[in-house]
Amino acid sequence: MQPSKTLSIDAMGGDDAPRIVIDGVAEFLAARPSMSVLLHGNETLLRPMMAGRADLQSRATIVHAEGKITSDMKPSQALRRGKGSSMWNAVEAVKDGRAGACVSAGNTGALMAISMLVLRKMDGVHRPARTAVWPTLRGRTAVLDVGANVEADAEQLVTFAIMGEAFARATLGLPRPSVGLLNIGSEEMKGHEEVREAHELLRASAIDIDYRGFVEGDDISAGVVDVVVTDGFTGNVALKTGEGVARMLASHMREAFTESLMSKAGAVLAMNGLKRLKSLMDPSNVNGGVLLGLGGISVKSHGGADARGFARACEMAADLAASDFQGEIAANLARIGTGGVAAE
Amino acid sequence: MQPSKTLSIDAMGGDDAPRIVIDGVAEFLAARPSMSVLLHGNETLLRPMMAGRADLQSRATIVHAEGKITSDMKPSQALRRGKGSSMWNAVEAVKDGRAGACVSAGNTGALMAISMLVLRKMDGVHRPARTAVWPTLRGRTAVLDVGANVEADAEQLVTFAIMGEAFARATLGLPRPSVGLLNIGSEEMKGHEEVREAHELLRASAIDIDYRGFVEGDDISAGVVDVVVTDGFTGNVALKTGEGVARMLASHMREAFTESLMSKAGAVLAMNGLKRLKSLMDPSNVNGGVLLGLGGISVKSHGGADARGFARACEMAADLAASDFQGEIAANLARIGTGGVAAE
Repeated sequence: MQPSKTLSIDAMGGDDAPRIVIDGVAEFLAARPSMSVLLHGNETLLRPMMAGRADLQSRATIVHAEGKITSDMKPSQALRRGKGSSMWNAVEAVKDGRAGACVSAGNTGALMAISMLVLRKMDGVHRPARTAVWPTLRGRTAVLDVGANVEADAEQLVTFAIMGEAFARATLGLPRPSVGLLNIGSEEMKGHEEVREAHELLRASAIDIDYRGFVEGDDISAGVVDVVVTDGFTGNVALKTGEGVARMLASHMREAFTESLMSKAGAVLAMNGLKRLKSLMDPSNVNGGVLLGLGGISVKSHGGADARGFARACEMAADLAASDFQGEIAANLARIGTGGVAAE
Repeated sequence: MQPSKTLSIDAMGGDDAPRIVIDGVAEFLAARPSMSVLLHGNETLLRPMMAGRADLQSRATIVHAEGKITSDMKPSQALRRGKGSSMWNAVEAVKDGRAGACVSAGNTGALMAISMLVLRKMDGVHRPARTAVWPTLRGRTAVLDVGANVEADAEQLVTFAIMGEAFARATLGLPRPSVGLLNIGSEEMKGHEEVREAHELLRASAIDIDYRGFVEGDDISAGVVDVVVTDGFTGNVALKTGEGVARMLASHMREAFTESLMSKAGAVLAMNGLKRLKSLMDPSNVNGGVLLGLGGISVKSHGGADARGFARACEMAADLAASDFQGEIAANLARIGTGGVAAE
């Protein structure tokens, strides 16, 4: 198997693992006939799930793992006791060059910690960042950090901007993505000191990024910029708040179309548009958080995503494995490094 | 005019003032036949707008103001040059007892600064907080701070919790509102130091609040608690992000129901449910930010809200003026004060 054509999957991570994971992998393999996967997990559980499924039989290889990282494990515990677990093995296969990227729907903190230890950080990156891709009115926007770190200083925010820009170039099909810094007012007087300082650094910086200045929360869904940069606390709250609003509106929409015979008939007539809307309201569709800034590709799938959501995360991992976005980031960081911004 | 039955309106604040403001006030007066308003602003502009409108003619009194606070004015400029402006006069009428509450859709920072200077802070409150009311799956939830401050330490977060709880009791019709602290994980190890410290203070505190611990971004729309407490930066980003998602989905919904004759027919059949959904997606409906922690009631309406949104903000101001929520907060703060939490 060619590493760039192979994904390394943690089959045991996520709320409904391994069932959802296996279903998601099957969906992914059906969509990508040239790809293979390594399935890390309990063979006794996994083997029966592959029965009678041709894609899985021919292109998935079970790599037995005894251990499992549970969702309540702290990162430090995962590092101490995680060796030999399905998650650890999934990450290690990337390090060893057996796969181009790994995907896990398990414990985020543990995946972050194990990925950092095993894959190491890239030169010039002090803190990796988790990136989420949002649907917007104009297309898609990458938002980072959405929870890998609790805080970020100005230099880390600048590094996030560079990583996010390279990510958008590699995965969103944008030749020159625009970048904005999340703030609470477009006037320069507002916002955290770190945000204002990062703003000055990005404006003054010699690196060739299409930096557009401050954006606000509602600019994310409006698609005002292609990359939105923020600290992990704010980004995580924004991501989850947006998911919550979409879920609430989807629930009200279901009600609106089932309350009477007339409304049900209306739903049938408007079926096509409603299907598209439903998919936009489904958090599974924005699934796939990439930990940027590591020496290999590690993708976090939403723990509560369904099979389709997991398949999406696999597709993103496959796209990244096929691209040179790691090289892009390295080149940009090197360019910054000479400007002294990334120095610690 | 009875002060508690009178609102003091900044007629010149907001994107489309004074037109939107006057239309909003007219809507408010029609809905609340026992209320009156003071309209602070340029008489030459305002007088013609009242022509032929019975409610405005009989229950609105123009109080001429020459000056105007512009949207690009810094708070410090507003304090220096704002005296005699429509916003300043609107706030002063509350201070002087001529009105029970004031409403402005103008410059938030300026309203905050002027309200603090004129109405003063309540005893025990170091920083007032801006509160927004969100529609949720279960009803409504108050979120604070949504942007009055950029940061909040643990003690300020505790004060926000107390103020938010009193606010929810006074305006949401809840005898015992539940309170949550916004964080990025429900495990106690996660989150900012300030958030974790506030969590300990609220758990240990002698005050009688139904504190439920940490909540995440998606819990806001789910209505998991009645009051969500956070710092002003995070709260503002969450609020605007949620608005942005709702706006994006509303736009896609319009598309879905206009793309074909069939879908248009479907929209007609499902009209009732869709109308309700549309109103849920309209940020004007969550309008009305109250600055809690002052010696009087000052309500901020969204600068971009329509007449209906401004009317909502007026209704909230009227409800607050009729309630004793200032007294409730004072009582709670006094209770905490003895525990030493609010000491600076």
